[in-house]
Amino acid sequence: MKITAIVDEVVPIRSEISNAYISFREMTASAVAIHTDVVRDGRPIVGYGFNSNGRYGQRGILRDRVIPRLMAAPPETLLDDTGQNFDAAKAWRVMMANEKPGGHGERSVAVGTIDMALWDLIAKIAGKPLYVLLAERYRRGDVNPKVEVYAAGGYYYPEKGINGLLEELRAYLDLGYTTVKIKIGGAPLADDVARIEAVLALLHGDQQLAVDANGRFDLDEAMAYRDALSAHPLKWYEEPCDPLDFEILARVADGSPVPIATGENLFSLPDARNLIRYGGMDPARDFIQVDPALSYGLVEYLRILAMLEANGWSRRRCVPHGGHQFALHIAAGLGIGGNESYPGVFQPFGGFADDVPVVNGRVGLPDAPGIGVERKANLWEVFRTL
Amino acid sequence: MKITAIVDEVVPIRSEISNAYISFREMTASAVAIHTDVVRDGRPIVGYGFNSNGRYGQRGILRDRVIPRLMAAPPETLLDDTGQNFDAAKAWRVMMANEKPGGHGERSVAVGTIDMALWDLIAKIAGKPLYVLLAERYRRGDVNPKVEVYAAGGYYYPEKGINGLLEELRAYLDLGYTTVKIKIGGAPLADDVARIEAVLALLHGDQQLAVDANGRFDLDEAMAYRDALSAHPLKWYEEPCDPLDFEILARVADGSPVPIATGENLFSLPDARNLIRYGGMDPARDFIQVDPALSYGLVEYLRILAMLEANGWSRRRCVPHGGHQFALHIAAGLGIGGNESYPGVFQPFGGFADDVPVVNGRVGLPDAPGIGVERKANLWEVFRTL
Repeated sequence: MKITAIVDEVVPIRSEISNAYISFREMTASAVAIHTDVVRDGRPIVGYGFNSNGRYGQRGILRDRVIPRLMAAPPETLLDDTGQNFDAAKAWRVMMANEKPGGHGERSVAVGTIDMALWDLIAKIAGKPLYVLLAERYRRGDVNPKVEVYAAGGYYYPEKGINGLLEELRAYLDLGYTTVKIKIGGAPLADDVARIEAVLALLHGDQQLAVDANGRFDLDEAMAYRDALSAHPLKWYEEPCDPLDFEILARVADGSPVPIATGENLFSLPDARNLIRYGGMDPARDFIQVDPALSYGLVEYLRILAMLEANGWSRRRCVPHGGHQFALHIAAGLGIGGNESYPGVFQPFGGFADDVPVVNGRVGLPDAPGIGVERKANLWEVFRTL
Repeated sequence: MKITAIVDEVVPIRSEISNAYISFREMTASAVAIHTDVVRDGRPIVGYGFNSNGRYGQRGILRDRVIPRLMAAPPETLLDDTGQNFDAAKAWRVMMANEKPGGHGERSVAVGTIDMALWDLIAKIAGKPLYVLLAERYRRGDVNPKVEVYAAGGYYYPEKGINGLLEELRAYLDLGYTTVKIKIGGAPLADDVARIEAVLALLHGDQQLAVDANGRFDLDEAMAYRDALSAHPLKWYEEPCDPLDFEILARVADGSPVPIATGENLFSLPDARNLIRYGGMDPARDFIQVDPALSYGLVEYLRILAMLEANGWSRRRCVPHGGHQFALHIAAGLGIGGNESYPGVFQPFGGFADDVPVVNGRVGLPDAPGIGVERKANLWEVFRTL
């Protein structure tokens, strides 16, 4: 049993959108396919992975370091103890050989992309959806077949204004989402408050609004927004400040009436641990958004979950960034609190299987073995030729 | 005045050496050349840069993002207010456009490599050695023409033993170095103590020994080494723990009789700031080793120096990792405390101009405009065809 080839491609996921920090006009992602000599139904099994939006494709690190190390490893060193399947943790150590500690960015994306493809492969070889495999392996089979998802949007589309924003969010609610998220910090505070109030007027019942500053604010701005947001019943206030400025974060978090959410720009266990140690986050109120696809994959994410639980955090407080099927399986199989979703943007990577609609803010998973890349037509279009 | 082309190449700097964490057998670096239409003595001026050892060449990020952004920028947006030279800070903003905050690794190396080449270019256009230009611009011309350097070596060469180690260090002392550094943590504590005692027996007068654990230890190991090291008059105890584990670091630093040194695996202002906030480092005793070539270049390093000084740290406590001429110019021109040097390893990138010997632990700088890549024959061999 061995890997016969690993193919990668860089694919545009450009969108005509901006957050408070960057434009996504040039955004790319890496798509990888791990080919094996394991045959099912007359065809060799292939595992598929990709990185989620925000951090660009990683052709260089994949081709120069990560893929050559896997291909050079003796095949048996990548297998689990039964010899009947691959072992993602062993592959992880091979990919990270001769990599120095610290500096967790980009490399974490390259490794996360391959890790996703490995888990797709492992679940396909086991003949199970990934979430079932994860639940059996780590949770005595306890699955959460309907995962809470929220619709992230509300970007600053040029020239659309508040009416365009409301039209966009109404479409998400019509799709079955009950929690929606919009960007803040890309306009003056008063304009953002007007956006927020307009959206809140659209919501009813259990529907909720979260807001996302994308790490843009200094201390004064972050506190001014906190004060303004506190008047409203928001789901959370996301990334008020630079992702590594735990001092500002702790000031904002201290006594905040609005829950705080952050972590999408922390890409390793040591970085996530620093958030918990220094960020002043409240395990009874706040949310952790580390994205396994950008953060050395599920192998590292399992370590992050263990660290969180050792520090008194429930995994229900984890709602990963990224809006991809990989995180959806992790949520369903490992009992994570929920998942992001980007209806309509970051295509074809954003979103879930075509035949599982969102109902009452929750989404199910396909029963196909693996992650289900094949069950999302526009995504499969990228992978079928890899 | 404009950039006409930016060329990059990945060059092996492999060495048959290991530290406590990685082997350097497959190590690479990126070398870049920025070509311009500025003519001096009948030839267009070219700026040269490279990344220092430990973090691999960055072909992917250079070619996919950093270089295309610079080449797409209107030429005048990269010039200073006089229009007579390039502006590294403006180029920095162009290179970092549409890059999200956080995740400081790899990207920081790609940008640092180009930043080095830009400063080489800027000094050449000004017709001055870089250190003179920096001193004039930032220190009213106050230069330190002889920079303290120390010889970093003492790796775990397979099969050489203590005699091989002593032979290596004797050669450094014969070259004129007065401070030498060896690795620890790649052998049992008792063996490392034997190595340390053997080296100390070799030293006399002002000669000093530093030791480097390369981030390998957990808390118990780090403290056990601290206890063992405290019996000896060491220059410093470097990277006792994971570069982002500020809790272990603070425990080791608290009351340590041996100075602590760290920072080579922190690659940004936010990461260096967290070290100062949480690492328990003592500005009267300890050393900061952030390497500008790996950390978004001198533009970011100037921000880091400002942050350090705002927190009560003298720039004399900075002794960058990397052993390259760029950091040597920064030390001479900005009054940094010293610089690393790797006599004999990481060639051709390690080391300084051929015609400036180390005397009494200090090294001078060539009077050629720029950084002086052309004045180190084996390094120039890499760049002359770029």
